[in-house]
Amino acid sequence: MEKRRRIVVVGGSAAGPKAAAKARRIDNDAEVIILQKDADLSMASCGYPYYVGGFFDDRNMLICTPTGVTRNPQFYFNAKAIDARVNTEVTAIDRAGRTVLFRDTVTGETGELTYDKLIMATGSISRIPPVPGVDLEGITTLQSMKDADFLRKIGDEGKIKKAAVIGGGLIGIETCEALQLAGIEITVIELLPQLLTFLDWELAKLVENHVRSKGANVITDNGIAAFLGENGKLTGVKLQNGTELSCELAVVAIGVRPNVKLAQESGLEIGETGGIRVNEYMQTTDPDIYAVGDCVETLNRITGRKVLAPYGDLANLQGRVAGENAASENCVTFPGTIQTGICKVFDYTAGSTGLSEANAKRLGYDNIVTVINASPDKPGFMEGKLLVTKLVADKKTGMILGAQCIGPGNVNRQIAQWAMAIQGHLTVEDVVNADLPYAPPFSLAIDHGIATAHILQNKMKGRMKGISCAEVHRKVTSGESPFLIDVRQPEEFEQMRLGIGETLMPLGALRKCFNEMPKDKEKEIICYCKISLRGYEAALVLEGNGWKNVKVMEGGVLAWPYPREK
Amino acid sequence: MEKRRRIVVVGGSAAGPKAAAKARRIDNDAEVIILQKDADLSMASCGYPYYVGGFFDDRNMLICTPTGVTRNPQFYFNAKAIDARVNTEVTAIDRAGRTVLFRDTVTGETGELTYDKLIMATGSISRIPPVPGVDLEGITTLQSMKDADFLRKIGDEGKIKKAAVIGGGLIGIETCEALQLAGIEITVIELLPQLLTFLDWELAKLVENHVRSKGANVITDNGIAAFLGENGKLTGVKLQNGTELSCELAVVAIGVRPNVKLAQESGLEIGETGGIRVNEYMQTTDPDIYAVGDCVETLNRITGRKVLAPYGDLANLQGRVAGENAASENCVTFPGTIQTGICKVFDYTAGSTGLSEANAKRLGYDNIVTVINASPDKPGFMEGKLLVTKLVADKKTGMILGAQCIGPGNVNRQIAQWAMAIQGHLTVEDVVNADLPYAPPFSLAIDHGIATAHILQNKMKGRMKGISCAEVHRKVTSGESPFLIDVRQPEEFEQMRLGIGETLMPLGALRKCFNEMPKDKEKEIICYCKISLRGYEAALVLEGNGWKNVKVMEGGVLAWPYPREK
Repeated sequence: MEKRRRIVVVGGSAAGPKAAAKARRIDNDAEVIILQKDADLSMASCGYPYYVGGFFDDRNMLICTPTGVTRNPQFYFNAKAIDARVNTEVTAIDRAGRTVLFRDTVTGETGELTYDKLIMATGSISRIPPVPGVDLEGITTLQSMKDADFLRKIGDEGKIKKAAVIGGGLIGIETCEALQLAGIEITVIELLPQLLTFLDWELAKLVENHVRSKGANVITDNGIAAFLGENGKLTGVKLQNGTELSCELAVVAIGVRPNVKLAQESGLEIGETGGIRVNEYMQTTDPDIYAVGDCVETLNRITGRKVLAPYGDLANLQGRVAGENAASENCVTFPGTIQTGICKVFDYTAGSTGLSEANAKRLGYDNIVTVINASPDKPGFMEGKLLVTKLVADKKTGMILGAQCIGPGNVNRQIAQWAMAIQGHLTVEDVVNADLPYAPPFSLAIDHGIATAHILQNKMKGRMKGISCAEVHRKVTSGESPFLIDVRQPEEFEQMRLGIGETLMPLGALRKCFNEMPKDKEKEIICYCKISLRGYEAALVLEGNGWKNVKVMEGGVLAWPYPREK
Repeated sequence: MEKRRRIVVVGGSAAGPKAAAKARRIDNDAEVIILQKDADLSMASCGYPYYVGGFFDDRNMLICTPTGVTRNPQFYFNAKAIDARVNTEVTAIDRAGRTVLFRDTVTGETGELTYDKLIMATGSISRIPPVPGVDLEGITTLQSMKDADFLRKIGDEGKIKKAAVIGGGLIGIETCEALQLAGIEITVIELLPQLLTFLDWELAKLVENHVRSKGANVITDNGIAAFLGENGKLTGVKLQNGTELSCELAVVAIGVRPNVKLAQESGLEIGETGGIRVNEYMQTTDPDIYAVGDCVETLNRITGRKVLAPYGDLANLQGRVAGENAASENCVTFPGTIQTGICKVFDYTAGSTGLSEANAKRLGYDNIVTVINASPDKPGFMEGKLLVTKLVADKKTGMILGAQCIGPGNVNRQIAQWAMAIQGHLTVEDVVNADLPYAPPFSLAIDHGIATAHILQNKMKGRMKGISCAEVHRKVTSGESPFLIDVRQPEEFEQMRLGIGETLMPLGALRKCFNEMPKDKEKEIICYCKISLRGYEAALVLEGNGWKNVKVMEGGVLAWPYPREK
C-alpha cells in the first residue's frame, strides 16, 4: 500500500486552516495536521475592531462557522478529518529530516513530527515603537482574541476616559472608531503627514476631517517619543515634538511585520521586503515547504515588485493555492496582488486598489495622469451620498493603474469594479463606455466611476485643464492670485464657500458677464462649483470666448480638504 | 466667417439632452437645438417607480439638477447655450434638404429647421396587449411624468384597493413594489413561466417567492385575454386561462418597442430587432443623422448580435458619443452592451450581466458550464445577508459569459464586479484569485463572487459534480429515487428542511456512518446543506471512500425555489 502523504501546517489563524482544508479536499487520503500556537483556531481577526466597537456581542461569532459551530480541534476532526492541535508551538524545522519540533505551550512537553510537505502560515507580529515605557500596563495591540477581549472589556466597563491610538493606518482607524463608539475620548497619533497611506494626501485629508467631525482628535506628522506612567500604569504619551497627552490606554497600531523567525532559523530565503520568499506556487526555497499569508512577500501584479500585503483575503487565496499544490504537486499558481483595500471610517468608507499617485511616483512611474471626481453615488431623490474618487492612469496607454475612493457613498462597489477593471487591464477608453448596473437605488445613470473616466478622458484629450485643490491652495497661500470663480448659485454660495478670494459667477449668468472677467486673456482663471461639473462647463465657455489659461479645480468644493470660510 | 454648425436633436428625455450637452462642450460655436415633444425635459424616468412608491415626495426632483434647478428651456439656454424647445413634435425629416418639420403640440403651429447634423433620440413606446378593453379608464403605463403623477395620486388617495400589473419584467416588478407600498393589493400577471427574464428560471423563482412573501400575488404562464369594465371604467382583468380577477387599476408593463416611426418614414434603415440601425459612431444609414437611446439597436459585445437594450445608462453613454461625433466628425465609438441590469425588488435586489444560461443556449452556445452559489455577502457577525449567484462560463476557455445575482445582500457590488470582469475578458481562472476589497463590513474574506468562481473551477476540474435544484426536483417528482443526504446539524434540519425524502446525516458524523450509506457504490447520491459548502465536503468524503456517483445540489437549501416541508 502507498504511504499516506503527511501535510503539516504551521499556524491556524487564516491562511493555515484554509490550506489544510484545501489539501484535505484534494487528497482524501492525506494526513493533514495543523499545529497552532494559540488556544483558538481560525479566528476572524479582521472582525476584532467590530467586536470591540460593539457591532455584535457574542465573541464566539469570531471563531464559529456560520451555523454556530466553534472551529475547535473536535470540529476539524469531525467535519474535515484534520488533526488540529492548539497550544502547540513549532520551535524548529529539521529540513534535512523533514521533521518539525514542537512544544505544548501549556504543559511544556515537546515532540516532533515528520512531514512530506510543510505549509508555513506563521502570520505577522505587531510592530512596537522603540520608545521608553512600552511595558506599562494599559498598552496593547489589537492582534489577538486576547487583545480583543481586553479592549471590549474596557469599552463595556466604561472606566477609561482617554485613549491614544498610535498609528493611523487601517487598524488604527478601525480601532479609533471602535473605542470612540465605546465613549472613550480618542487621539490618533500618526508619524506621517496623513492617515491611511493607501490614499493620496488629498483624499486622506478628507477622511481625517470626517474622523475629527466625529469628535476624535487626530495628530499627524508627529510620532510617539515615550509612553509615560506611574506605578507601572500608563498615564500618558509624549510626542516627538514634546507635547504630552494624558491617557489611560494606548493601542499600538503602527503596522505588522512578517513573522519569519522560524523560516529564517530554518535557512529559508527571506526577501528584501522582510517576508518569506515564495514562487508562484507559494513554494519557499525549499521545495517541500510552502508559505502563505502575512509571513510571505507577494508579487504586485502592476509593478512586478515584491510587496508585503498582510490582508485576510489574500491569506485565504494563498492558502487555497498552497493547499492544493502541497497535496498534488505544483499545479496551481497565485498571481499576486494589486493591493486592494477597504476600511470603514465611521460613516465614511475609504478604499483603494492599484497604485496611488504617490506610490506610482515613488516607483518611477512619471508618465501618469490623474483626476479627482466628486459626485453622489445615486440620484438625489434616492438619497445619494458623496463619493470622491481619484483615478491614476498611464498617460501613454491609458491603462488604469489605480483608483481610490472615499466618502459616505457606496465606495465598496466603486473599489470592487476598479479592482476588476485593473485585473482586466482596462484603459480609460474602455471604462468610458462600460456597461454597469444602473437603477436609481444603486447608481447614477452615468456611474460615478464611469464619470470619473469621462473627466480623465477629457483631461487626456486636452479638453479640460484640471488643477488639484492642493495646487490651488498652494497658489493662494503663496500669494499668487489666479482669478478664481465659483460658478454655483448664490444660495449655494451662502450655505458653503471656500473664501479664498473667489468671485461668485453662476454658470447660468456667465455668458452675460464676460465684462467682469479678466481683460487679460492670458490671465490664469480657475473655475469650480460643488463638484466641478459646472466648473468644467464654465471653463469651456471661457475658452470658447478667448481666454487661454482656464483651469478646473478638480472635485470642487466637496473635494477641498482645507478649512472653508463657510 | 465660417458658418456655425447647427446640430438638431429630436427628443429631450435622456439620450437627447446628453448628446446636445456633449455637442455644445465639443463645439462652443455650434448652434444646438433640442426639439422635445413633451412639456418636460430631461426627466429621470427611471425614478418614476420610486416617486410612485413614496421613496420621495418632491416630484420636481425628477426634473431638477442636483442643486434644485429645473431643467427647463431657460436652464438649457442660460447654463448650456442650448435652445431647447418643448411641446415641439418633429413630424417629418426632409433628408435631401436637411430639414426637420415640426409642430407645436399646444398651439398647433408648424415650422421647419435646417440642420447640419441631426441626432434622433425618439425613445420607446410602451407595448400594449392587443386585447379588448384597453381603452377603459383605470389602465395606464408608467412611462411618462403624467403616468407617474397619476399613479402617485392613486397611492396618496388610498381609494383603490386592487390593481393588476400586466408584465413581470423590470418595470412591472418596480411598479408592483411601488403600488404595494401604497397599500394596494397587487397581482402581477406574466405570460412567461417566470418574472424578470434576464434571470434564469431558478433565480427568478426565488425572486418570485420573495415578492409573494411581501403579500403581492404573482401569476405566471398566463397572459391577459381582456380588460373588463363597466361604464367605461376598469373592473377587472380576464386571463388567457379564463380566470377573472377584479381590480380597479391596471398598469401595463409588458415592455417597450423602439419609437422608429419618424426614422422609418424618413427612409432610415431599421434593423431586424426593430430598432434604428446605427454603426459604431451611432450614425444611421444617413451620415448626417445619428440616433441614440431606446430607439436604436445596440451591439451585444459578447454575442456580436444586435439587440434592443432600452436602458437609461446606455442612452446617456450613446448620447455622449453621438454628441461628440456630430460636433466634430466621427472620432469616438460606442462599443455596445453586455446587457447589465439591476432591479430593486422589495428587500431583494436582482441583477444580471452578460448571458444567462437560457439566453446562451438560445443563441447556440452549447459548450457552457454553469454553477449556482449561495452564501452571505458579509460575515455573520456583521449581519451578512444572502446572495445567490449563477455564473455562466465557456467550458473550453473558461471565459465568463454571464453572471446573475439575487437576494437581500449586496447584489450591486457583485454585478458591478462581474460586469467589469466580462468587459476585461476575464476567465474563471482569473477570478479565482482576484484581489477585491475585503473588510468585514463589506464582504466575506473570500468574496461571494470569488467563491462562486472557486466552485465553478472545481466543477470544471471534475472535482465536484453539481446538480441543480431544478434537476433534483425533476428526479424526485418523476419517481427517481436518488439517495439524498442533508449534511447540516439536527437543529438546522428542525428549523428548515426540504422534505423530499432526504436523510439527515451531519457532516461531522458522516465518516462514522458509512454503514448507513447505500451498499451499491454506483448508486446516485446527492449531498447538500444550507448553501452546499458542507455538501461539497460530504461528497468528497464519500467519493474518497468509494462511492462513484456523488453529486452536490448547488446552492443548497437556500437556493431551492420550490415549496419546502419546513
